[in-house]
Amino acid sequence: MLKNNKNLTEQCADLASGKETSVSLTMKALDKAEEYSYLNAFVVLDREKSLDQAVASDKRRANGNCLSPIDGVPIAVKDNYLTKDYPTTACSGALPLEPSGQDATIIANLREAGVVIFGKTNMDEWAFSPTNVNSNIGPVLNPHNTNHVTGGSSGGSAAAIASGIVSAGLGSDTGGSIRMPAAACGIYGFKPSYGRASRHGVLPLSWSLDAPGPLASSLKDIELLLPYFLGEDSKDLSTVSSAKFEVVEHNEAINVIHLTGEGLERSDEIDTAVKRALEASSAVVKEAGLSHVDNYYEAWEAIIFSEAASYHQPLLKKNPGGFSSGLRAKLEAGSQLSALDVLQAQRLRSQLMHTFACELGDWDIIVTPTLPVTAPTLNEEEQEFGGKKVHAHKSMLWFCVLGNMTGYPCVTIPIGLSKSGLPIGMMLMGKPNEDEKLLAIAIKLESALKKHSV
Amino acid sequence: MLKNNKNLTEQCADLASGKETSVSLTMKALDKAEEYSYLNAFVVLDREKSLDQAVASDKRRANGNCLSPIDGVPIAVKDNYLTKDYPTTACSGALPLEPSGQDATIIANLREAGVVIFGKTNMDEWAFSPTNVNSNIGPVLNPHNTNHVTGGSSGGSAAAIASGIVSAGLGSDTGGSIRMPAAACGIYGFKPSYGRASRHGVLPLSWSLDAPGPLASSLKDIELLLPYFLGEDSKDLSTVSSAKFEVVEHNEAINVIHLTGEGLERSDEIDTAVKRALEASSAVVKEAGLSHVDNYYEAWEAIIFSEAASYHQPLLKKNPGGFSSGLRAKLEAGSQLSALDVLQAQRLRSQLMHTFACELGDWDIIVTPTLPVTAPTLNEEEQEFGGKKVHAHKSMLWFCVLGNMTGYPCVTIPIGLSKSGLPIGMMLMGKPNEDEKLLAIAIKLESALKKHSV
Repeated sequence: MLKNNKNLTEQCADLASGKETSVSLTMKALDKAEEYSYLNAFVVLDREKSLDQAVASDKRRANGNCLSPIDGVPIAVKDNYLTKDYPTTACSGALPLEPSGQDATIIANLREAGVVIFGKTNMDEWAFSPTNVNSNIGPVLNPHNTNHVTGGSSGGSAAAIASGIVSAGLGSDTGGSIRMPAAACGIYGFKPSYGRASRHGVLPLSWSLDAPGPLASSLKDIELLLPYFLGEDSKDLSTVSSAKFEVVEHNEAINVIHLTGEGLERSDEIDTAVKRALEASSAVVKEAGLSHVDNYYEAWEAIIFSEAASYHQPLLKKNPGGFSSGLRAKLEAGSQLSALDVLQAQRLRSQLMHTFACELGDWDIIVTPTLPVTAPTLNEEEQEFGGKKVHAHKSMLWFCVLGNMTGYPCVTIPIGLSKSGLPIGMMLMGKPNEDEKLLAIAIKLESALKKHSV
Repeated sequence: MLKNNKNLTEQCADLASGKETSVSLTMKALDKAEEYSYLNAFVVLDREKSLDQAVASDKRRANGNCLSPIDGVPIAVKDNYLTKDYPTTACSGALPLEPSGQDATIIANLREAGVVIFGKTNMDEWAFSPTNVNSNIGPVLNPHNTNHVTGGSSGGSAAAIASGIVSAGLGSDTGGSIRMPAAACGIYGFKPSYGRASRHGVLPLSWSLDAPGPLASSLKDIELLLPYFLGEDSKDLSTVSSAKFEVVEHNEAINVIHLTGEGLERSDEIDTAVKRALEASSAVVKEAGLSHVDNYYEAWEAIIFSEAASYHQPLLKKNPGGFSSGLRAKLEAGSQLSALDVLQAQRLRSQLMHTFACELGDWDIIVTPTLPVTAPTLNEEEQEFGGKKVHAHKSMLWFCVLGNMTGYPCVTIPIGLSKSGLPIGMMLMGKPNEDEKLLAIAIKLESALKKHSV
């Protein structure tokens, strides 16, 4: 499906060459949004607001005042980013339906670059689910097969990109919420290192795990977008300063650790796809296991449940009816945890970081499948793979949580389709704060992969 | 008392000029330790081990193989640093009395520099008290007045320095455990930024607050010692990389925020001493208040109690009798806290950091007294100052916890004696990871102060 759509890089070139205008791109996006409205990708989409921004962009370009290479491109925004002109509901009934009047730092950055903020996308209620079935406006459907989920919680952005409505979108990732829908929809998703992307104005789910990032149609698109995400922000004290964003071509050999074994199972067809992709690349691949994977998953749960419960306590007291019963139960479970549960979880987290940093030997990237199995159907409660039966939520999160527990940067790239026609993604994890190097390696690895397929 | 003793910088000069040898310095230290044994500053002190190291140092120096400027100086070590040749008891009955066979990273650094590791110093049991009364070998007595406490938990190192046994020592600081005894004993203490000093091999009390650092007889001594404390350590993942340690003379004006007001009270005589010191300096001083100070103190308590309970759980189950009943009660209280208590505390912590970083305007250093009142007597349960009656533990921690809650670097310098002859300290807090600049400012400020007194 993607083959017929232009990616962000191509759209920018078309704008630069005059082949397209921001208005023509935005009109096409509006038409496609109508064509694919059955996917339920958008919470709100305003024709007039979008076209107003496009007209302004075209005027700038005509006057030689183009703000950036991405000036005029329509980009979809997950509904947990504050946007001054749209309400921000997090697909929950608990928040007011008036526009906040405020922009998240990343939104402000993109507006300064001239981007057309093209509507707000569907997501799991407060980002606290991995399927995008749990939204107060109903599930998002997978463009590859509408019986299947997109994965969540950034499912609306992923579906809008995979269906070609827009070439890129914004997501946030606490346990895989960018990478899971990107993989399930056959597109690209990047979770920055914890502390490199500003979270100011992005509604929190679990503040020690959350990372906002882009979903897009190519790695070059990600490279174009990341500068607007990364950078120290005095409004988010967790952000760190770093050198100017620059992706330098990676010419050295790539040392890959491919994580396998107990607790890291995947379906045969996904295993084959990842192994083929790694073989096709010129990388030096070493397989390694990881002990206590289940403990790490439980630690991640303790952290996200307790931090979400802590954050939501005031609003939950004030407006309990604004939350779904499912989410209320999760928040209640979080508030029942003890200090020792949470601190034990944090210690396991340090242990996992130590393992990755010191015990796996030399590596440039750590690779796993993004999902251990293709996306479940909308009603599927349990998935079977690698000799295990796993709740569909846990199977989605299977590998991705490792990225949030460590805070390391991760990118998912599509590596093919299953026999049933559903996308398969491969996840690459880089060293902390080396987001640029991770992207450079992903670009090199994918280009080797593409040569091999030709 | 200090006037008669040489500081570390002078001792190094004497070694370099041949006026002293490591053996002569170590012999003097051993003699003084005997003279002042009633202070109860040492847990263990081994004449032979100390002299062996001194002999080796003198041999190196004679052969022109001196390892560093501090080669041969005897330095006292708080009993929560692992040392391969001494047991490490943390002044608790719960740990084995055999040497661990391991050196903390900082100890290893100092050994490589040729320092004489001169015995292990008394401390509060597991570092979990601010007076150094709660040790399994009994309290340390204040060299200025033996009816008074030294402050804790690094009281043994402080007393050993203030009495002139050694010129410098090692401490650790979770709520002020370096700064409180340094101030109460009239010497200098430096708590590095969280993450700049390696904690590998320093027994933890509360891992998100702990910082190891030096106590010494002058700011130049601190400058000599800090390089052995600071630096990224692969064995402590909380450490960050930074430029080579270098203190550059501070020639610009110094912008000071002097914290005062509700929750930040101090006795009149201490208030006068701090104000005089600030007036004598050439600094530009602005007074500012801080709201919710009591909340921050309670948040600090929730963090230290819960983290200590989490860390000690296994040993407490195995060997409950090894802990004092007082410490057992504290650990029990910590294990009763809920996840929400701890997370709320962490959010208050972020709020405090935000206040310091963004709401106080421009500043180079934040100044408070180190203690709001001079050191209590050994039996004093409550202290009165600024119209308040406060538990003596809380009064010790009054200002110091702000340094641990934010993780900012802090230094305490002596600024005179009270009418009763007890030392008064002033605390300077710098910007995160700008430990060098803080020290440079402290040096400049103190030199202005000294000129003024002359």
